[in-house]
Amino acid sequence: MLVEGNHYRTIWPNKDLSGVTIIDQTFLPFEFKLRQLGTLGEVLEAIKSMRVRGAPLIGITAAYGIAISLTESLSDQSLIAAQKLLIESRPTAVNLSWAVNLVFDQLKKEPVGNRASMAWKLANRLADEDVRINQSIGSFGLELIQKIKKTRINILTHCNAGWLATIDHGTALSPIYKAFEEGLDIHVWVDETRPRNQGMNLTAWELAQANIPHTIITDNAGGLLMQRGEVDFVIVGADRVSVDGNVCNKIGTYLKALAAKTHKIPFYVAAPLSTVDLSYYGENNLFDIECRDEDEILKVKGMDSSNNLTEVQIGYSSAYNPAFDITPAKYVSKIICEKGIYNPSDIGKALR
Amino acid sequence: MLVEGNHYRTIWPNKDLSGVTIIDQTFLPFEFKLRQLGTLGEVLEAIKSMRVRGAPLIGITAAYGIAISLTESLSDQSLIAAQKLLIESRPTAVNLSWAVNLVFDQLKKEPVGNRASMAWKLANRLADEDVRINQSIGSFGLELIQKIKKTRINILTHCNAGWLATIDHGTALSPIYKAFEEGLDIHVWVDETRPRNQGMNLTAWELAQANIPHTIITDNAGGLLMQRGEVDFVIVGADRVSVDGNVCNKIGTYLKALAAKTHKIPFYVAAPLSTVDLSYYGENNLFDIECRDEDEILKVKGMDSSNNLTEVQIGYSSAYNPAFDITPAKYVSKIICEKGIYNPSDIGKALR
Repeated sequence: MLVEGNHYRTIWPNKDLSGVTIIDQTFLPFEFKLRQLGTLGEVLEAIKSMRVRGAPLIGITAAYGIAISLTESLSDQSLIAAQKLLIESRPTAVNLSWAVNLVFDQLKKEPVGNRASMAWKLANRLADEDVRINQSIGSFGLELIQKIKKTRINILTHCNAGWLATIDHGTALSPIYKAFEEGLDIHVWVDETRPRNQGMNLTAWELAQANIPHTIITDNAGGLLMQRGEVDFVIVGADRVSVDGNVCNKIGTYLKALAAKTHKIPFYVAAPLSTVDLSYYGENNLFDIECRDEDEILKVKGMDSSNNLTEVQIGYSSAYNPAFDITPAKYVSKIICEKGIYNPSDIGKALR
Repeated sequence: MLVEGNHYRTIWPNKDLSGVTIIDQTFLPFEFKLRQLGTLGEVLEAIKSMRVRGAPLIGITAAYGIAISLTESLSDQSLIAAQKLLIESRPTAVNLSWAVNLVFDQLKKEPVGNRASMAWKLANRLADEDVRINQSIGSFGLELIQKIKKTRINILTHCNAGWLATIDHGTALSPIYKAFEEGLDIHVWVDETRPRNQGMNLTAWELAQANIPHTIITDNAGGLLMQRGEVDFVIVGADRVSVDGNVCNKIGTYLKALAAKTHKIPFYVAAPLSTVDLSYYGENNLFDIECRDEDEILKVKGMDSSNNLTEVQIGYSSAYNPAFDITPAKYVSKIICEKGIYNPSDIGKALR
């Protein structure tokens, strides 16, 4: 997508394969900064501290991480160590282990001497594939939007499932970009998405770059807007989807799904099939929800009056910071993936 | 309640009746500051900028505002003007017009020369009555808590309906203070309550002062906690209650009520009967929801690393900031008022 008129992806390999360049998302929307990742340690740090985030993007970043680790050591032992470290760097997004294992399994078959170049090739291929997948999600999602017969279509989204969460185009935002290109009159309610404010920091920034009408709201406001008929559908991404359509996504998604159900508003999930966890079935919590540092709640970063990026302490009691929740399939209207539009309980079939 | 061991109310008249002293809540939890309000203009500013807030407290502050206005002018004209300005200073809490009209109606019957002293007397009486009402709410609420047969009782609350929202004791927090005094093993999940963070700033501070175990969570987290069985009941205050039990309260309350209903968790509202609006019937939005400045969402105040209270800009797109939502009576388990515990649809009967 465009940043001040120039086309960017969120990550790309350096020409000399010295590493990758990423958009450092921890500085958005305050500063647009690129960052070099030249070692496995730097890749792990970037994933853990959420310089790159979003299930599809961290999967592909980890794939590049394997390639980078091979520039440091070609031994089987260090390859296995890299695989383990990358998979453990964030626990929830299943795309992470999917991408790492996919690359790892291919490399094992190769002679050691070929592995590094093969790893770069595979990571690049996954990145290009992600772009195509998201374009496809955009087209299928557009079909759903085009069915809404209203002058202005109000869409609510939570967190960031835009191009910044992927290589390009995004998942939940991909149909929105397509609808805007098609000239539909759309407006997006952007949940700020505490504690890390990915909605306010990333989604609003993305939509502003694309000149798409949008308004930031607190995570608390969606219920009132739905009560008043000011939301035509909700669309979010996913970090992990069970074979039968239960959706693990950013904390707070579940509350919006309940409200959407109450008000008979469609609740769509847009995600690549790599988000589906074949080992996850049923709506019970079959895996640990990532719990992040309490300082993500108690401290906030922003620009002070002298235009210095400053972190301030906003709370003093201890805080509990689970990063995801699970929306049972019965609250999900449709899952949009690269193969089409599925009833959530049928998403497993899309994998066949 | 106690602040570092010393007893305080949230507002009290100066001995020489030169005005009132308030706790300036816009500095909490960073600094504990008192502030003098000596003119009607200062009272209006304190209500509008939320130096005092909480439906019961702004009602009584407005009553003191009438008394203060009479020290500036005794004319009927300025009394009527003060009445109008005070009622319009915040639109949602019906306690505001209730208190102002109650004082105004009494004063009209009095000779002009008696009005000032009568106004102070009435405001003081309302303040003392508020304290008794909240103690009563505490006792009735305690009965509900005592019925929960669990070792540790987890309570979720939204916004601040503690002693800072009243003259003393609070509404939703009053039963919690009583339960803690009784030695019950309780723990409070404190919704931070964006955008103004009254949960993180005020409720957490109150509970910390009283040594009551509590944990700050984002407004997004309540759904997950309920899914996991980590919430035994929800209790909130109210800014306006319809005769048939629909509850207007801080934005985000509705989302928690929907989640509580889904998980069969009791959802209690604690409020004095002065919160009941006799002209408000049915769950439709019969009055405008207060919409506040977008900067409440886009800017945040906190302590920087040099311990200076600093405001930082956290978002750049435009924002929409409705301050309240409406929870239909069917999602409210019980309303606790000074007369007892009511089914929401029966709350009108308590007024007879």
